[in-house]
Amino acid sequence: MSSPNNQSNILQGSLNKDILLKLKGKRTIKGKLKSFDQYMNLTLDNASEVFEENKIQELGEIFIKGENIVIIATD
Amino acid sequence: MSSPNNQSNILQGSLNKDILLKLKGKRTIKGKLKSFDQYMNLTLDNASEVFEENKIQELGEIFIKGENIVIIATD
Amino acid sequence: MSSPNNQSNILQGSLNKDILLKLKGKRTIKGKLKSFDQYMNLTLDNASEVFEENKIQELGEIFIKGENIVIIATD
Amino acid sequence: MSSPNNQSNILQGSLNKDILLKLKGKRTIKGKLKSFDQYMNLTLDNASEVFEENKIQELGEIFIKGENIVIIATD
Amino acid sequence: MSSPNNQSNILQGSLNKDILLKLKGKRTIKGKLKSFDQYMNLTLDNASEVFEENKIQELGEIFIKGENIVIIATD
Amino acid sequence: MSSPNNQSNILQGSLNKDILLKLKGKRTIKGKLKSFDQYMNLTLDNASEVFEENKIQELGEIFIKGENIVIIATD
Amino acid sequence: MSSPNNQSNILQGSLNKDILLKLKGKRTIKGKLKSFDQYMNLTLDNASEVFEENKIQELGEIFIKGENIVIIATD
Repeated sequence: MSSPNNQSNILQGSLNKDILLKLKGKRTIKGKLKSFDQYMNLTLDNASEVFEENKIQELGEIFIKGENIVIIATD
Repeated sequence: MSSPNNQSNILQGSLNKDILLKLKGKRTIKGKLKSFDQYMNLTLDNASEVFEENKIQELGEIFIKGENIVIIATD
Repeated sequence: MSSPNNQSNILQGSLNKDILLKLKGKRTIKGKLKSFDQYMNLTLDNASEVFEENKIQELGEIFIKGENIVIIATD
Repeated sequence: MSSPNNQSNILQGSLNKDILLKLKGKRTIKGKLKSFDQYMNLTLDNASEVFEENKIQELGEIFIKGENIVIIATD
Repeated sequence: MSSPNNQSNILQGSLNKDILLKLKGKRTIKGKLKSFDQYMNLTLDNASEVFEENKIQELGEIFIKGENIVIIATD
Repeated sequence: MSSPNNQSNILQGSLNKDILLKLKGKRTIKGKLKSFDQYMNLTLDNASEVFEENKIQELGEIFIKGENIVIIATD
Repeated sequence: MSSPNNQSNILQGSLNKDILLKLKGKRTIKGKLKSFDQYMNLTLDNASEVFEENKIQELGEIFIKGENIVIIATD
């Protein structure tokens, strides 16, 4: 088995960088990763929700419960 | 691992301040945080539900079950 | 940690008063709280379901399973 | 804590009477309650599903799995 | 407590008869009950899925996982 | 209780034959059954997803996680 | 029982190849498989989300939580 770069490594490597998140329920969130824990709970800074046709709602500093995360995109 | 400011810290720092919540099922709630517990159950004052096109339903004092919370935005 | 007025206190204080409930699956219910238990199972009197554009379906006396409750608004 | 008339009492008092059920997934069912168990599994007689605009599909005798029940309205 | 005719009895009495099933996710299935087990897993013969406006897709012999069943209607 | 032909038997009898699957979330998949395990995880060959109006997306060889399967139709 | 090529084998055989994923909530993702673990957590490179009418959103390097995966198509 090829062990994936595990999620801690991925998140560690993305600290203070912009990430994009796809959540359950079709939400898309982007922002700068500030911290994470072993449940994939995240805090982001300069976060915003991205809606269809690229409309954006600015959210500032946010906490996201990890159980809702489907995809983490790290550019 | 960079420990996130854990959720207790985030919520503690937001007591008596306005927060915005994104819940499962696409609900958006805002209000002043009055209390919380370890399950992220919250009570808010001056709460309202925010619908599309910024229509608002005033809810007054509310209790929210923590299991429904996806995102907490603290301005 | 600031302990929320826990849910028993909130519900105890609302006995025989009108409350409004937001349930999973986008249901909104209102009625007079008659009783509750530790699972947040509730019985309401003079209950009704509130639909969009404030259409209402009267339900009379109802039992609600607590696991479906997202928000309790106590005026 | 004000113990609700527990669900057994509510169901016991509704035996052989018409009840209305709101289920997960937005289903509405009505019929005459014939029996129930501790999981809130129910059997109804003369049951029907009620759709929008009060269209009705007659179902006859049915068994409902209790885990799907959100609200029981007993007139 | 009035014990319902339990689900085994209901299913036993419907063997080789036509039943109608309402499943989670708004599916409606009908067919002749051929067998069942304690998880309410069913096999049906001459089964079909019923869509809106009574359009039908014939499915032949099917296996249904019991956890998806909401309502069993036995005519 | 009439034991259903259990799911292993059903799947065993369908090896190398075409089956049709209804999944949670309203997906319909068809293909030739190549293998299965005790969790009802399946591999199919010549698989395709069937959309409304019988539009088809060819998927080739696929793995399906068993927990998503609602109905297995074996012609 | 015909043991399926188990998921590790399937994923092992697809390393560094393009795969297509169907996720819960109707998402479709494609990309080159870079790594996986025993929870079916995956990392993909050159990933993109595929929307209706084949519109595509490029996502670059992504992490996908395995619990959201319904189907893995390996060409």
